[in-house]
Order: sequence, then structure tokens, then C-alpha cells
Amino acid sequence: MTNRIEARYWIETAYPLELAAASIAGEQSTGTFVSVPGETDALRSRCAARVERIVELANADEPSLPGSGLPKAWDGQRHTAEVTFSWSLDNMGPSLPNLLATIAGNLWELKAFSGLKLLDVKLPSAFLDAYQGPQFGVVGTRRLCGVPKGVLLGTIIKPSVGLSPEETAERVRILAEAGIDFIKDDELQADGPHCPFASRVPAVMRVLRVHAERTGKKVMYAANITGEVDEMLYRHDLVAREGGTCIMISMNSIGLPALKVLRKHSRLAIHGHRNGWGMFGRSPAIGMSFVAFQKFWRLAGIDHTHVNGLRNKFCEDDASVIASAKECLTPMFDAAGRGCEVMPVFSSGQTVRQAADTFRALGSTDLIFACGGGIMAHPKGIAAGVRSLREAWDAAVAGIPLADYAKSHGDLRSALERFAA
Amino acid sequence: MTNRIEARYWIETAYPLELAAASIAGEQSTGTFVSVPGETDALRSRCAARVERIVELANADEPSLPGSGLPKAWDGQRHTAEVTFSWSLDNMGPSLPNLLATIAGNLWELKAFSGLKLLDVKLPSAFLDAYQGPQFGVVGTRRLCGVPKGVLLGTIIKPSVGLSPEETAERVRILAEAGIDFIKDDELQADGPHCPFASRVPAVMRVLRVHAERTGKKVMYAANITGEVDEMLYRHDLVAREGGTCIMISMNSIGLPALKVLRKHSRLAIHGHRNGWGMFGRSPAIGMSFVAFQKFWRLAGIDHTHVNGLRNKFCEDDASVIASAKECLTPMFDAAGRGCEVMPVFSSGQTVRQAADTFRALGSTDLIFACGGGIMAHPKGIAAGVRSLREAWDAAVAGIPLADYAKSHGDLRSALERFAA
Repeated sequence: MTNRIEARYWIETAYPLELAAASIAGEQSTGTFVSVPGETDALRSRCAARVERIVELANADEPSLPGSGLPKAWDGQRHTAEVTFSWSLDNMGPSLPNLLATIAGNLWELKAFSGLKLLDVKLPSAFLDAYQGPQFGVVGTRRLCGVPKGVLLGTIIKPSVGLSPEETAERVRILAEAGIDFIKDDELQADGPHCPFASRVPAVMRVLRVHAERTGKKVMYAANITGEVDEMLYRHDLVAREGGTCIMISMNSIGLPALKVLRKHSRLAIHGHRNGWGMFGRSPAIGMSFVAFQKFWRLAGIDHTHVNGLRNKFCEDDASVIASAKECLTPMFDAAGRGCEVMPVFSSGQTVRQAADTFRALGSTDLIFACGGGIMAHPKGIAAGVRSLREAWDAAVAGIPLADYAKSHGDLRSALERFAA
Repeated sequence: MTNRIEARYWIETAYPLELAAASIAGEQSTGTFVSVPGETDALRSRCAARVERIVELANADEPSLPGSGLPKAWDGQRHTAEVTFSWSLDNMGPSLPNLLATIAGNLWELKAFSGLKLLDVKLPSAFLDAYQGPQFGVVGTRRLCGVPKGVLLGTIIKPSVGLSPEETAERVRILAEAGIDFIKDDELQADGPHCPFASRVPAVMRVLRVHAERTGKKVMYAANITGEVDEMLYRHDLVAREGGTCIMISMNSIGLPALKVLRKHSRLAIHGHRNGWGMFGRSPAIGMSFVAFQKFWRLAGIDHTHVNGLRNKFCEDDASVIASAKECLTPMFDAAGRGCEVMPVFSSGQTVRQAADTFRALGSTDLIFACGGGIMAHPKGIAAGVRSLREAWDAAVAGIPLADYAKSHGDLRSALERFAA
């Protein structure tokens, strides 16, 4: 592998593409807006960013973002393109925070652009020496859950906020007895005064330990430890002491350096919640794709992350959902066993209806399939809801149409009646 | 002060405004997409977010963002409005990471909206018990620099990346001898192999100590310590040991919890670089205003932050620059002496030409005025460049037109000739 960092962007500009690309390369390495003493040829050849590839796309009619400039002699064209830049690793060393200042720093403010989105990034393997990557990933999560094959069925504790520790534990009991594999806190619930972490986790884990003793099944509970660094380490230890197997953090709330500290300390799977990612991902004209975003977090040590789901209740389209999920399962380094693959978590409006399409698109059951209403609203109750989802996934993997499989599987039949196509 | 958190957003929606606002309030507190057991009236009255105010603005013609939905019986109107929500502090407690998951979480993904931007936030004073705020702020920074009044004149080491520690120190020597108050590393320069932090900072500080011994003037050098948590603490200690007074961090690279750790440890002023903020701030249809953004970071402990400058080389307009700078100097809490005011840093294409307008708009000299080319490109050299900026600010404060003042001040006259209006 080369010792250069590559980043690919979508850009929109009224300037000639080569000129616009050169302005990013300059701003994000050796240049400034006037020539300064010391920017020698030797320095430039060592440190200047390189424009590696420009793939021109269709012109845009109007500027996507305000504040852009026009060249003095404008030919009336507003170009769009995918442009790949590279930087020497020696510009910043294998440091994610300093990588961000380079590839996701001031460039959104450049006047040459009326649109700019970071699409993907490729990192040299030197980053693997500086970061630990996922501790559990797909294989380890399956082991912790005792689910060697098939999807992991999951759910989220709702109402998001307002339940007491005892009410939360009671809900967990019902879900565990219904046969669920994975339960997570809502991202709005961490350590609020109504449901303190130090009461909630022991209450929930007591229920799950009893369940495990009785059934042999250890349900994974992703306890939302999001908070300050010392709080997160303390909460990690509490979860571990109570026999838990997973902690959850809101990635955008804590930042990469805090995750690195947590990963070094952690003995548990880390569930990376991407709430707030819509701010980066939703606009095609600004921000950062999830394909790029999740790489930083995988390298820093998450084991799972969210990708929405097919026909979700949010505004992400299916192609984007599947691209994100596939990326989670694709090695980001060539190093054997250190590809940093993580488990994608499908959620948001998911029911038996999405199982077959999800399996077809992803070609894998290495995922957590999380349903709320898709379980709770089953006409025969929560256990039947969980069974119906297993039936839907069995049918998907066997390639049997849902309607056919439902003829011999009553819970699935009821689910299909309840959740219209 | 109330015990509720307020956040104000700009929204764009094809749904009736009250309905759209209610969907945010539900998603970001007690609700989910179907009714679930346990969302009782009592729970809702305790924990539901409230819509406090809706100020309708002009309708939009087209959706600003893709992926939005339409109501079943759409009246053809695409509303825009400023909407203020409030949450009980008890939903998450005084925790910035968990506050972000609530007020800047999943809401950008909601189908009801074709545009959504966080404009401002008001926090109850309970946050002041949990966070330390700026240690130095405006008054402390003036004390550390020995500049009791007037603007602090600053500059940035360029080329951004590629200089050796010795070359950096030599540049600092020239700038210090020219009379500058403040020098910062570029955000691209932290601890790359070409210019290791552990060599750069001693080399730079040796120069600044010699300068201070000779002249009595202690130039503030903001050393870019951006990195992992342990690296930042180590680098802080190195700067302190070398007699430095300031450290710089890229806020978006490190995250709020890492800053909280650093603030607790720090004996130095913390310079908060906002690179990457353009991704949040540039689009009017998505993201977060700097007015909202900077409040989180002030509370967590920065002492300075960047606001661009008037007629800057980037795409931020002057109104936005001044709104940001004014906000930095406005108390965010009523508590006496604990308003968390920080020093705004003006930069990007600044010269003598912007002094009077900046002073008029801000009504204060509590700022760092950072120039690169505006100093270096002075026809009579760097010292004359610094003197010309002091003259421009003296004229601004005295209310004397630049051209008049230049008649009796040669360095300013040369600068006016060099930097055309």
C-alpha cells in the first residue's frame, strides 16, 4: 500500500475544473491566498497535495450553495465532477484528528465552490499501527450474543425518554422472553435524572442475567454510556461488572479522540450510534457521505453502526442504505484479519416486509435487524412479532417468497396482514 | 433562569407548520413512528418537548433538500419558519454530548422537512455547574499578552505545512521582532514527521523567551496540540514547561468531551480553531449556525475562536461574520463573571482596509486581528506591516478616516497603496 492518503469529493464550480481542484490542493497543504516566502519548489514537491483524478459530470444550472465566486472571464458553465486528491502521510502522520483538519477542514468555505461533498477516503495501513479498530466486529458480536448464523434481531427501548429504571427493566424482560437477540437504549436516554444510568443498568442486567440462567441465552444490551470521558469509562466498568456485553455511544456527540480512549479501555462491544449524521449526509451538495464517515469510526474502534433500513421512515433512499451497509462489511485495509469490518444495524420502520429485499441487496445475514413497531404491533404479541421476523428471514435466506412461506407459518402470516406492503 | 433548554431552528416543510413542529418535538423526546405502550400522558407531560414559538416566513418554491415527503392532501405550499422548541433539563441532565443527541440528533433525517438548520440555543445555568467555561477569555488573554487595550495583532505561520522546526522558529523570530502580539500554527501543522511538535515548540519558545527578555514583550504563540487525548495533555505540558501561554485545538477534530478533559488540565489559554465549520454553516438549508455552535465550545472551555473577517477570502458574508463575533463577546449566562465570553479572531484576507469597518460593526477592540499577506506583503517589510495595522486601528478607534491619518503615518500610507480598496 502506498504512503499517501486519498480522498474523493463531489464538487461544483464555475471555475475550470483543473483550476478549482488545484485551489483545494493548495489551501489544504502548502498554499495561502498570496505567495509567501518559504513556499519553495522543494517544500511543494514534498508536501503539496496532488490532484489524482478528475471525472467530469453533468453541468449544474444553478449554484447549490450561496457565497461562491465566478472567474473573471466566465464561460457560463457550472461544472460538476468527482475529484480525487492525495496527500503524503508525512503531512500530518497517522492521526485521525489531524487527518480531519486536512481532508474535512476549511475547504467548505472556499469561494471557488458552490458545492462540495466528501465521498470516500482511503488510508494507508500506517493508521492500523496507531488505532485499534473494532475489538469484536461481526464475529465477536455473534459470539457474545450466541448467534453463530442468521441475522441478529434487535429492538430499541421506547418511549425514548421518560421510563424509570424499573420500567425499562420490565420492558427488557418482556423483550428477552419474546426471544430478541439485541436491545439498545434510545440515543436520547443516557443518564438523565429520570432514569439514572447507575440504576438502569443494574436493573436491566438483573433481568438479563435471570433470563440467561433460565434459558442459556445472553441477550446483548447496548447501554448508552454517552457522556464525558470519565463518565464513559465509569459506565463501561459498571456494565462490565454487571455482566453486560455492549456499550453504546453517540459518535457525533463524543468525537474520535474520546472513542480512542474508550476503545483502549473497553472489554465490551461498542455500538456506534450515528445520530446527527443527517446533518452531514442528507444534502448532495455539502457534507460527508456515510461511506467516508464510518471509516474514521471503525478505525477508532466501533463494532456496530447504524445504516437506516430499506424503505425507512427517514429520508435516506435505499441505494444509500445498502451502500453504507456493504461498506461496513468491506475491509478498509488489506491486512489479514484487520480489515476493521463492523456489523451494520438496520432500523427505522423495519418489518417482515424488508427482510427479503435486505438479504438480496446485501447478500449477507451479518447484520442487526432492529424493529420497534415491527415487533410490538404484531397482532399476537411481542413473542409472535419476534418469531415472525425470524420466519421472514428464514424465507429470505431460503429464497422462498414471503406469501408462500406464510402459508405454513402463522406468525409471519399475521405480520403480513398487519404490516401492509 | 428556567430549567428548560431552548433551541431555535429554521425549517422548511410541505406540512402544516404546527404538525411539522410537533413531529420534531415527538421524535426528539417521547415519541416514535407508532404509538407504543408506556407513552402515557404523565410521561408526556414530564418529558415531551414543547413547541414554544413559530414565526412563519415566506414560502419556498422548491424543496432545498432531497428526500422530503408531502402530506396526503397537500395544499401546494412549502412553508418556512423559525421554530423554537424547549426540553426539560431532566430529559438529559446538564451534559453537552447528550444535549447534542437531543437538539442536533436524528432530526435532519425527518421526512417532514426539506430544510432544517439549528440557529441558536439557550441553556439553563445548571450547565455552569457541570462545565468550566473559558479560563482566560478576553481579560485573561490581554493579561497573558501584556496588551491591556486595543486589538491584538496576530498572524499565522505559513506555508501551512512543510517548514522544519528551525524554519518555523526563524519565522517566529522575524514576526516577534516586527512587533506582533499573537502567532498561531496553521491547523494543518500539529505533529507531522516534517515538523514534530516536540522539536517545534522548544525551538519557537526559545526565540520568544529571548525576545521577551530583550523587550519585555511576551508574544502569545498558539501551538497546535490537536491530536489524541493523551497527546494533547502531553503537548499542553510541554508548552507550559517552555513558558508558552496558549494551545490551539481544531474543535471539530477533537470533540467536546476531549476539550472538557483538556480544559480541566489546562493552565494555558485555549485557542479554538473552527476548521470544518463550513460543513455545518455554509448552507442556509441544513446544518448549524456558528452562533449556536460556539456556545457549546465556550461552555466547554475555549478562550478564543475564529469568525473569519469582513470581506474575507472565504464565502461567509459580513453580516454573518459580525453576528458571530458579537456573540463571542455576549454573555451566554446571567451569572456574574461567568458569561463565558471569548475573544473573536478575525482572519482571512485581512489588511488595514478592514480595521475601521470592523471596529464600527463590533464596537469593540476585544479581538485578535490576524493578517498574513496583510503584514508580509507590506512594501517596507514586516515591521512596517505590523505598524501600519496599529495605525489603521488607532485611526479606527479615533474615528479618523484612513486617508487622513495616512497623511501623517507613512507605514499606513504605504499599506493603503499596496492593498487597494
